[in-house]
Amino acid sequence: MTFLSPTTSLLQQARVLLVGSGRMGHIRAKAIFSNPRFDFAGIVDDNVDGAKKLADVYRTPHFSSLSDAIHHYSSTPLHGIIISTPTPTHEPLITEAASANLSIFTEKPVDETSSSVKEIFNTIRAHNVSLCCGFQRRFDPSYLSLFNTIRSGGIGTPLTASIFFGDHPVPSRQFLLQGGGNIISDCSAHDVDYIRWVLGDDVKSVYAVGTSSDEELGKAGVIDNATVVLNFQKGTVVTLTLSRGANYGYDQRCEVFGTAGMASVKNITESSTEVSNATGIHRPKWQHSFPQRFEVAFGQELDAFADTLLLKKPWPVSESDCVAVQKVCDAALESCESGQVVNLFA
Amino acid sequence: MTFLSPTTSLLQQARVLLVGSGRMGHIRAKAIFSNPRFDFAGIVDDNVDGAKKLADVYRTPHFSSLSDAIHHYSSTPLHGIIISTPTPTHEPLITEAASANLSIFTEKPVDETSSSVKEIFNTIRAHNVSLCCGFQRRFDPSYLSLFNTIRSGGIGTPLTASIFFGDHPVPSRQFLLQGGGNIISDCSAHDVDYIRWVLGDDVKSVYAVGTSSDEELGKAGVIDNATVVLNFQKGTVVTLTLSRGANYGYDQRCEVFGTAGMASVKNITESSTEVSNATGIHRPKWQHSFPQRFEVAFGQELDAFADTLLLKKPWPVSESDCVAVQKVCDAALESCESGQVVNLFA
Amino acid sequence: MTFLSPTTSLLQQARVLLVGSGRMGHIRAKAIFSNPRFDFAGIVDDNVDGAKKLADVYRTPHFSSLSDAIHHYSSTPLHGIIISTPTPTHEPLITEAASANLSIFTEKPVDETSSSVKEIFNTIRAHNVSLCCGFQRRFDPSYLSLFNTIRSGGIGTPLTASIFFGDHPVPSRQFLLQGGGNIISDCSAHDVDYIRWVLGDDVKSVYAVGTSSDEELGKAGVIDNATVVLNFQKGTVVTLTLSRGANYGYDQRCEVFGTAGMASVKNITESSTEVSNATGIHRPKWQHSFPQRFEVAFGQELDAFADTLLLKKPWPVSESDCVAVQKVCDAALESCESGQVVNLFA
Amino acid sequence: MTFLSPTTSLLQQARVLLVGSGRMGHIRAKAIFSNPRFDFAGIVDDNVDGAKKLADVYRTPHFSSLSDAIHHYSSTPLHGIIISTPTPTHEPLITEAASANLSIFTEKPVDETSSSVKEIFNTIRAHNVSLCCGFQRRFDPSYLSLFNTIRSGGIGTPLTASIFFGDHPVPSRQFLLQGGGNIISDCSAHDVDYIRWVLGDDVKSVYAVGTSSDEELGKAGVIDNATVVLNFQKGTVVTLTLSRGANYGYDQRCEVFGTAGMASVKNITESSTEVSNATGIHRPKWQHSFPQRFEVAFGQELDAFADTLLLKKPWPVSESDCVAVQKVCDAALESCESGQVVNLFA
Repeated sequence: MTFLSPTTSLLQQARVLLVGSGRMGHIRAKAIFSNPRFDFAGIVDDNVDGAKKLADVYRTPHFSSLSDAIHHYSSTPLHGIIISTPTPTHEPLITEAASANLSIFTEKPVDETSSSVKEIFNTIRAHNVSLCCGFQRRFDPSYLSLFNTIRSGGIGTPLTASIFFGDHPVPSRQFLLQGGGNIISDCSAHDVDYIRWVLGDDVKSVYAVGTSSDEELGKAGVIDNATVVLNFQKGTVVTLTLSRGANYGYDQRCEVFGTAGMASVKNITESSTEVSNATGIHRPKWQHSFPQRFEVAFGQELDAFADTLLLKKPWPVSESDCVAVQKVCDAALESCESGQVVNLFA
Repeated sequence: MTFLSPTTSLLQQARVLLVGSGRMGHIRAKAIFSNPRFDFAGIVDDNVDGAKKLADVYRTPHFSSLSDAIHHYSSTPLHGIIISTPTPTHEPLITEAASANLSIFTEKPVDETSSSVKEIFNTIRAHNVSLCCGFQRRFDPSYLSLFNTIRSGGIGTPLTASIFFGDHPVPSRQFLLQGGGNIISDCSAHDVDYIRWVLGDDVKSVYAVGTSSDEELGKAGVIDNATVVLNFQKGTVVTLTLSRGANYGYDQRCEVFGTAGMASVKNITESSTEVSNATGIHRPKWQHSFPQRFEVAFGQELDAFADTLLLKKPWPVSESDCVAVQKVCDAALESCESGQVVNLFA
Repeated sequence: MTFLSPTTSLLQQARVLLVGSGRMGHIRAKAIFSNPRFDFAGIVDDNVDGAKKLADVYRTPHFSSLSDAIHHYSSTPLHGIIISTPTPTHEPLITEAASANLSIFTEKPVDETSSSVKEIFNTIRAHNVSLCCGFQRRFDPSYLSLFNTIRSGGIGTPLTASIFFGDHPVPSRQFLLQGGGNIISDCSAHDVDYIRWVLGDDVKSVYAVGTSSDEELGKAGVIDNATVVLNFQKGTVVTLTLSRGANYGYDQRCEVFGTAGMASVKNITESSTEVSNATGIHRPKWQHSFPQRFEVAFGQELDAFADTLLLKKPWPVSESDCVAVQKVCDAALESCESGQVVNLFA
Repeated sequence: MTFLSPTTSLLQQARVLLVGSGRMGHIRAKAIFSNPRFDFAGIVDDNVDGAKKLADVYRTPHFSSLSDAIHHYSSTPLHGIIISTPTPTHEPLITEAASANLSIFTEKPVDETSSSVKEIFNTIRAHNVSLCCGFQRRFDPSYLSLFNTIRSGGIGTPLTASIFFGDHPVPSRQFLLQGGGNIISDCSAHDVDYIRWVLGDDVKSVYAVGTSSDEELGKAGVIDNATVVLNFQKGTVVTLTLSRGANYGYDQRCEVFGTAGMASVKNITESSTEVSNATGIHRPKWQHSFPQRFEVAFGQELDAFADTLLLKKPWPVSESDCVAVQKVCDAALESCESGQVVNLFA
């Protein structure tokens, strides 16, 4: 990972706040701290204990509300905030930050419906700040390399794509039973954004089937596995196979097949050690989960946010990307329920 | 490959005729000749030149019709015939062979519609002979190993499967334009049979999308790429991605994902040589085509036919398997045309 | 595997005898039988039971001595014999066959010392027949591909090579303790021949270390593991690591490193099935042993012998190859004992 | 990578200086800055420009001499220094730091001869500080996993090991011709230390051959490729193949073969993207060089130094390790020159 774009003065630093001290907050805090282009101004969370604990690790102050933090920095102005909190809190946080003239990086999705996403972007434009939605695949070296291969014609015209999303570790049963996450709502957005970006094309119809991996989940109506077919306007047919539980590691693959070849992102093992013995040839599991698999991508993503803050570089994920991804995921959910193909933009 | 089941007398040989001297005929001729359990009684083809040429290689007589061949062996009775001819010729050949009391191995499909398949099996039963339809994946070491892994619970309950069928080399444009082969009719049967067998389950509904890889094929209505979703009765969701043209070799993969892991059949390279240089790490293409990829399977398949002829071992592919595969492929074609999900056994 | 060189008449067949019905005899018998260019004239072994058993499988006569077999075919002349018997029997068999005007294929080594090898080749020349020593790597698709890569400059100038020979399954302790095979005498010749051929160069000095894998073998003086360094005249340094027992399958690798890259022959798994579960990513063991790993090579090797018999094509392994390989192996043994570097051609 | 051992107070920080702003200095600076357990007190280099440039990136002061820096912190005491300068400067820097009561992390080797290494450790003991020599393989997840596999008996008794060290990118011709680095002096120490540690054993004799990859280098006496055989006291035979130039990426492999299997560290590709086309199956080159391949290891190594500074945890590389590695490398150089086996501890 290389920091410091050649056009930035060495002394330019972006002063940022992190909102949220949960799982994603931990990942973002580490990336902010490790990047010398950021001045880590503090961590905001109404869970004061969590905020303090994380802030102490990274030698930064903590605040119990965004207002407090903004007030604290009234004389040494902040540049931006990084929002790593549950989706329902995004809208008020974004609005407050925009009003304070801060640009915003937020975990996906921006909000829960495509209409509210549009409203939020209207607010953003009114305050002339940036809203940067995080889709880290766009910053991962392997996914980037696949993008470049396809965009440079390396496999000719893309005809089909097969994407696999296997989460690891398996969430707790309690989490699943308490409605924690229909897999389509929770896990398909990243791949939908990525494949739209790679293909430079929009989805015209969706077919999806959701299933439950056992009886208890089935009775509770928990869809923890799904197969989704996306028919793109230019003709590419993309299949997503998603699961809540890949017990052999975090399984994130994408292969695109075209008229002149195939290109794919493969998984990476926890270590490169292999053991051969009387039972066969054995490699370790795939990398543990998203903090490991996307560590570099998370770093590059925030470095790109620094570019937006310091150099006014436009963010690669647009409002229409955010809205379109939402619509595709919504259509997949609808198809799951109806058992029928759902047309978009009809 | 090991011949000679321990219960066969060394001196028992099955005297067989091969009908057809085309591409599959060549493969079958080699497998018959190399297996000492067969007495290769001759090759039948009304293309006399083709029959003679192939028969000369394997030091066996040739005949221009099945009747001639059967008549020739009236005093030294034949045990069976192997039919490697185009599908429309299967029914008369099977009927004639059955009438002559011969058991039959035939290339898939037995016939073009499920109703005619049923009629043919009725004829077979009337003459008390065996009709053995060839689905060579069932005899391939890798596909067999995947079957055993899944059936022994190695991946828990199967939830989804992803199958890729990429043909190689790409058929000639002329072949494609002359209606040569909608990919679903031509190429999906093997995988449909295999996955039904692995899952021990039947398909309840099908969704399929077919596309053409360029404008000329599109205008001619040639579907050379397809994506098919099979919803099985017990809940497994299977995706097939099929293409007429994988320019990087014969690409035949099958992966099954379950509650306790994933098992998959991978491709095999033409050789195990790898070259590393300034442009990367390079392996040769996948094996050239089905004669190479399934050479062992074709041998084992005919060895199993020897078991049926000599030891009366029942053939693993049943009438209902043949009929069900046909129905699934028909439903996929129907879904391709309507754009809607097609229910089976409704 | 393709038979039938385009210049051979389809009706030309080489009538050959196989001498030996042991492990190699079984492999050769199958290859002779499966190749339509051979007329399998019989199996010779003074172990009459073994000869009969194998001959019955392949529908060919058996004989208790080479003289009997040659006499039997006095009116329908034989073309050649294939000798698959222990090394000490090679010389008399080769002499008798040459006297009867037969060309000879023999398992390596031709004989136990380089001087007797030279004498045998003198006899051969006197009778104007061919003596074809078997080094099957030269006919294996992967080893051939590596040869072609290197000879076409694919890796620039070869600087070093690393070869691994791991036998599988482990021979019985009894075999090992009864002097069965110092690993250098038994297992290094194939790789020494191959790398000399690839490099087109001769060895100038050898350093070798032999070890015993446990105390019992050590006390019995059984060297079942060895490391050998071959210094070639043009400067390439080649390392061989050899072991009697690779419990994870037959491990046969060769990598050559040069100024412009690296090329290597990798192992091949028993099947292409992979299983991923909570303990990692698992492939089956490497192919079981030489009959599996070199099945294609053994077939191509005998097909090349058919070329020698029918088309007078010269055999690729020359007298000087056979002698040089022997000298290198002898020098390695000597180095093992002395602990010092041994110079060749000094 | 996880920081913060559970026994450290969150508020404990080690105040450290970095000496050296060259290639290794850059790597160490990044690792110090990113680890919240360190308080980065400054960068020392008499190359003031280099020191300033690097110090500015990481918002830390710079100094032109160690004395200046130590004087600067007389009231807020330092804990340690990290020495990333050329080997000849190690001794005075270590002595000055030890006199100032600072513990020291230093790049390998501690010094150029085993006698001066011993003297330096005497000085260290006199001042009761720690001297931590960096061998980052011991902190790399893959090398650690191999260590654990072998130490837990996963491959039985180790019999042989094959290590490959291929540097990338190739150093400039000027660097090579100006005596820049006999490959044995420069590149073998890491693997020698690692394999001694894994085997828990000492080398008893060494055989080595060094070669030049072309005529110009040969005439200049530059050994840029080498093969080294290490005979360990308990019987394991280890082969190192080293090269200055692997044009396909940084090639660092280690495989250990034992009585019950084999375990190995494989290379890692630059990205996990694979492209399949008409010329084969292609992966990117191996990771670019040591900063990429050992990024995690470098981080963990300095985190372990924090443990030594803050928690008094003993450093895993001992004086006798440093001395023994030096002796083995010296013996390899001697063998290269004499062409004979060199005995150690004789």
